[in-house]
Amino acid sequence: MRPRLALVPGEPAGIGPELCVRLAQRERQAELIAYADPGTLQAAARALGLPLSLREPGQATGPGELAIRPVPQSRPVVFGQPDPANAPAVIGALEAAAAACLSGDCQGLVTGPVHKAVVNAAGIAYTGTTELLARQAGVDVVMMLANPTLRVALATTHLPLRAVPDAITGQGLARVLRITHASLRRDFGIAAPRIAVLGLNPHAGEDGHLGREEIDVIIPCLQSLRAEGLDLVGPLPADTAFLPAKLAGFDAVLAMYHDQGLPVLKHAGFEQAVNITLGLPYPRVAVDHGTALELAGRGTADPSSLYAAVALCTTLAARRIPT
Amino acid sequence: MRPRLALVPGEPAGIGPELCVRLAQRERQAELIAYADPGTLQAAARALGLPLSLREPGQATGPGELAIRPVPQSRPVVFGQPDPANAPAVIGALEAAAAACLSGDCQGLVTGPVHKAVVNAAGIAYTGTTELLARQAGVDVVMMLANPTLRVALATTHLPLRAVPDAITGQGLARVLRITHASLRRDFGIAAPRIAVLGLNPHAGEDGHLGREEIDVIIPCLQSLRAEGLDLVGPLPADTAFLPAKLAGFDAVLAMYHDQGLPVLKHAGFEQAVNITLGLPYPRVAVDHGTALELAGRGTADPSSLYAAVALCTTLAARRIPT
Repeated sequence: MRPRLALVPGEPAGIGPELCVRLAQRERQAELIAYADPGTLQAAARALGLPLSLREPGQATGPGELAIRPVPQSRPVVFGQPDPANAPAVIGALEAAAAACLSGDCQGLVTGPVHKAVVNAAGIAYTGTTELLARQAGVDVVMMLANPTLRVALATTHLPLRAVPDAITGQGLARVLRITHASLRRDFGIAAPRIAVLGLNPHAGEDGHLGREEIDVIIPCLQSLRAEGLDLVGPLPADTAFLPAKLAGFDAVLAMYHDQGLPVLKHAGFEQAVNITLGLPYPRVAVDHGTALELAGRGTADPSSLYAAVALCTTLAARRIPT
Repeated sequence: MRPRLALVPGEPAGIGPELCVRLAQRERQAELIAYADPGTLQAAARALGLPLSLREPGQATGPGELAIRPVPQSRPVVFGQPDPANAPAVIGALEAAAAACLSGDCQGLVTGPVHKAVVNAAGIAYTGTTELLARQAGVDVVMMLANPTLRVALATTHLPLRAVPDAITGQGLARVLRITHASLRRDFGIAAPRIAVLGLNPHAGEDGHLGREEIDVIIPCLQSLRAEGLDLVGPLPADTAFLPAKLAGFDAVLAMYHDQGLPVLKHAGFEQAVNITLGLPYPRVAVDHGTALELAGRGTADPSSLYAAVALCTTLAARRIPT
């Protein structure tokens, strides 16, 4: 059985809608249901000169067709000019799509880029889609970025660098590693995942000469998790952990913070990079790029990340379907 | 005229001596003078089954020959087993080679890996060769790592992560950027260098939402340096600054700290990566690897980084010779 995926384009004025229109031109391994404003998708199709027939969910769809559950915007889209009046529809689409995943109506969620400042300008408290989905589901989650050759999970995400060291706690790190381990098994089908854990400090603290968090927090946490059966290597110096020969031995890398883990991942394959939320009751994969307002409506935006997100979410969701 | 380079193998019990022996088998574009214990180099040559004739500086040298200024060790080398009794010779060789560069007798310095803990075990205060050379010359320096396609300079080097934010000051950053700019012009021959400056915080602080150091320190510093004529772009988000298409527009990247800048550089070309000290009165290039005690004396260590260091130092030193 093909999995059914909920698809949310994100900010209407950005490149999300046109990427979904381009996606709709392709043969698909999953049934896709867009949660979006129909007029915005049609406007994107017109702007790109591509065909688009919107269908009721459940009807067969081929290239040029897309099933939709309408989430109407207050105002018509103007590509490149985001309107805070449409922010409730953006958030509403995310919540409706996530609800469909929680209810089992869909088996996975693919999301496009949301423009945080526009949502906040509408008076809606929103720090990111990952956080929204975690709150709605009532669970702790882990953010993982992946390209076809590398998976990087983050122990902390969008924090000022100054706040990172105190945010690395034994309890928090254990939670992140358990979620990552469980997801590598359940979602990625890796029976005995091996995770490289980076140190917080340069050279992983060099035996305490360059910081004590490895000795005081990270090493004890890894020891106790190893006793639970997790296969964890580290703490490793971040600068040499990403040597291709070293990476070959690991199923994922856990970086302690954003800029320690993501530069290599994006350098080595940005176009196909995706953002995966681990720990939700359903698989969620997002594009790893922004709204690119300056490109919207031109048809020049690279759809590789959305295609990669759909492909990966299809694989992950298929593992959730009872055979 | 060929430049004359001082060559220091570093820790005798590590792979430095054998890499120098392998280097001595090659044709060379520079005159090389080793500052080392003759017995250690001969022992490395015997271990590898390679010829080595040591000569007085000034004599012609071809493959299998190497000029030497002897710096005798207290005890014979045992590969793989460092002896703190030989640490004074290690440090003495560095100081003598640097003195030759300061006096103009040599035009550049190439150094192998030193084992910090062994030097410290001998009761010698030593935090790194870069720091030793800076103190001896009485100047401020900048550490830059480079491979054939990327140059990354560091605003801070070996500090606990917790200490990084307060170490980024307007004055310090200006010093680092002026040294980097001047060295790209003088040493690398780039008439109008363009430098990408990373932010300290994720997303370069996202307009203050993820930290204020960009607004309070980095942006004002860049503005004042631009008024002096430096071509600086940033502060840029570190995760996307290393996309190959973006890097193409820059002559160097300034990272705010060790693990922000070095993982990409080592991922993308560790074997040929080298460590360059900017700001000394002479060019200095070091290998970007450690002593690899477990490999010493076997002839299996990869000499690529030493070869790259000599090649780059030859180019940089040649620019210092009056034509």
